[in-house]
Amino acid sequence: MVRAMRAYDVIHKKRDGLPLTKEEIEFLVDGFTKGTVADYQMSAFAMAVFFRGMLPDELAALTGAMLHSGEVLDLSEVNGVKVDKHSTGGVGDKISLPLAPAVASLGVPVPMVSGRGLGHTGGTLDKLESIPGFKVNLSTADYRRLVREIGCCLIGQTAEVAPADKKLYALRDVTATVECIPLITSSILSKKLAEGIDALVLDVKFGSGAFMKSVDDAELLAQTMVDIGTRMGKHVVARLTNMDQPLGIMVGNALEVEESIDVLEGRGPSDVVDLTVELGAEMLFLGKVAKSLDDGRDQLRRSLRDGSAKERFGKIIEAQGGDRRVLDDRKLLPRAPKKLDVKAPRAGIVQSIQTEAVGIASMLLGGGRQRSEDAIDPRVGVELHASIGTRVEVGQPLATLHVADRGVDDACQKLLGAFRIGDGDAMRPPLFGQRLTGA
Amino acid sequence: MVRAMRAYDVIHKKRDGLPLTKEEIEFLVDGFTKGTVADYQMSAFAMAVFFRGMLPDELAALTGAMLHSGEVLDLSEVNGVKVDKHSTGGVGDKISLPLAPAVASLGVPVPMVSGRGLGHTGGTLDKLESIPGFKVNLSTADYRRLVREIGCCLIGQTAEVAPADKKLYALRDVTATVECIPLITSSILSKKLAEGIDALVLDVKFGSGAFMKSVDDAELLAQTMVDIGTRMGKHVVARLTNMDQPLGIMVGNALEVEESIDVLEGRGPSDVVDLTVELGAEMLFLGKVAKSLDDGRDQLRRSLRDGSAKERFGKIIEAQGGDRRVLDDRKLLPRAPKKLDVKAPRAGIVQSIQTEAVGIASMLLGGGRQRSEDAIDPRVGVELHASIGTRVEVGQPLATLHVADRGVDDACQKLLGAFRIGDGDAMRPPLFGQRLTGA
Repeated sequence: MVRAMRAYDVIHKKRDGLPLTKEEIEFLVDGFTKGTVADYQMSAFAMAVFFRGMLPDELAALTGAMLHSGEVLDLSEVNGVKVDKHSTGGVGDKISLPLAPAVASLGVPVPMVSGRGLGHTGGTLDKLESIPGFKVNLSTADYRRLVREIGCCLIGQTAEVAPADKKLYALRDVTATVECIPLITSSILSKKLAEGIDALVLDVKFGSGAFMKSVDDAELLAQTMVDIGTRMGKHVVARLTNMDQPLGIMVGNALEVEESIDVLEGRGPSDVVDLTVELGAEMLFLGKVAKSLDDGRDQLRRSLRDGSAKERFGKIIEAQGGDRRVLDDRKLLPRAPKKLDVKAPRAGIVQSIQTEAVGIASMLLGGGRQRSEDAIDPRVGVELHASIGTRVEVGQPLATLHVADRGVDDACQKLLGAFRIGDGDAMRPPLFGQRLTGA
Repeated sequence: MVRAMRAYDVIHKKRDGLPLTKEEIEFLVDGFTKGTVADYQMSAFAMAVFFRGMLPDELAALTGAMLHSGEVLDLSEVNGVKVDKHSTGGVGDKISLPLAPAVASLGVPVPMVSGRGLGHTGGTLDKLESIPGFKVNLSTADYRRLVREIGCCLIGQTAEVAPADKKLYALRDVTATVECIPLITSSILSKKLAEGIDALVLDVKFGSGAFMKSVDDAELLAQTMVDIGTRMGKHVVARLTNMDQPLGIMVGNALEVEESIDVLEGRGPSDVVDLTVELGAEMLFLGKVAKSLDDGRDQLRRSLRDGSAKERFGKIIEAQGGDRRVLDDRKLLPRAPKKLDVKAPRAGIVQSIQTEAVGIASMLLGGGRQRSEDAIDPRVGVELHASIGTRVEVGQPLATLHVADRGVDDACQKLLGAFRIGDGDAMRPPLFGQRLTGA
């Protein structure tokens, strides 16, 4: 009795902790993409993976199968080492906006495919779309052309790229199988590798506002992604960074674009600048434009200071249909009709900030999505006036809400609850954790 | 923010090993029955239960929710303690056929809802349907009437009873979540308790031909079912019985009816008789018709010897549309057109029999189903001539295959491989293991 391969048997093996072959994994992903493996089978498989994990061989096969479930872009016509950056998502994380043009301006092509925000985290695409006219849904041909001509393109995942990942991600999102290192790894890498990149810098967040709360989990995720990416022939570096408070002072879409422009003008909050410089240095080093990380840091800082990064961002905005005048006239960005201060209920020192709650407050105002089909209001968000260690007096504004027509009371309450004010001293935790590279 | 209950959160809690409330479990089962909780969510939940298990409170809530997902039959109009028997399934297990009429003939009402065979195990319904005209799909009204009038009715699960279980079982069957004690327990008990019974005798199999290979697993399943059943107000007794070789000598549908008639005539293989007597004694004792198990055994043996059990079976057959003349004229049962001996390849003593392989041989001939939609051939099956400890000579028949048009070569090979013949002595393992009762 020779029996055809069945999804049942693949799930069963994983459930029992037996290693799957490349063929079994490809059968499953292929069937899932085509619809011959049912959603209810794939969700059971995902849950089994949650409990059993995956061996490196299995995970490389899963990533490969998802990567090849759709179109794999070929950017070999573009000269240079193509480098992208991926962040596991945080609150106020607008780094891609200053980073991509800065790195591109220094000669490293940056083909960047980003996502949308969900829950407490924002998404690069939503932020970019707050620039009037900016289009993130470009054709593959335009994407290629822009990378070739201006060294950078900032788009969303196209339907053709990694369809298995799109389908699996939607399924994981409703079956409580998101928080699973092998599934996160294969999801991120399959998408990123399908863009036609040569190297990848990962910003893996840990702390209260991150997906991975503990540094150990973040480290495991980072190491897994570096290992699998390296195995698949790419140069991958991961940086662990702290998310115990929001990045920068702006959380919201147009607000974060403003803050990004500050950075591109050589100003901006030091944490946003520092992270842009570190990740940029990694990209420049991987892109063989910097001799060392220090050289990369110097080059990147210069591009922010001398306006070349900002100039490149203008070109990108223009090429993607946006109004580049926003760079010099902030009033052209959408603005919330009202502002409202959230005031300190007592005097003292900010001991901690529930970063996730800040993200949720912005979401409640309309700056994010509870469900993926929700519409975003680009105008609204949170402007922070205090960070960990700041001394505040009673009634002093902790934050200003930029509000329109939604969720003001809930957001206010959420934000107030996010700040813990006490009497002792408090120090902002260091922004940078470990740096991980391939073998 | 008051948030409505979501399937996601229930799955997430179970995944993380947190105890679920009754409300959460009812929400999930209710939504699944109605279709507002998706199959892919329920299969992920089932897989999480596979890994995390369920606490007694959770399991009672799950069983209750599944029980109340459909109609719960009320047999209070029928006098006496209504008792049913459930077996976890084995090869050659035709016990229900002689048992139900014997117990009913002694004054204990037996409302019996049975299942169909799948894979290597046969199903009571398929066996009954090999009696010409016998109908297992009766209305609830007819079911009630037969239990009242003749003390027994042998039917299949109706669409109205425990629809959540039907849906969940189908899902587990294709997502590798069948082998899970809490899910097995809630499946069996929700169906059985919906029949309107007062007490239940469980025959939990262990050994090579059983679903639970190890006696420890079988014991855990038995204890779980006894505990949850008791908690839900029913009298439940479980007997562990050995499945290291088939029960009786016949495996197949009409063939097992024949063997059952032998038992009802005071003859038949001793293991089938002994198991019928033991389970019957338990039912008579629970049904308050026997003063003790020994009294029950005596009464049951008498009903088999004096023809009253057989007479009652005749009444049941007649009432369910079947031809009761089969009881006295075996030629009225469907018969396979051909027979084929499987001969011993060497002399020696039968050391072991892979019971599952015997069941699969019968299935390959058409006596069982590989998939639930397959059609059964009632005529075919396996007649065993040797059991563990039997001395055989080269070329002596180990078994006779009753064959029609399907799977002869495969079945032959499967059966030959099932017998291990050696030189040492071998003893049939004892049929009976532990007896478990409620607190």
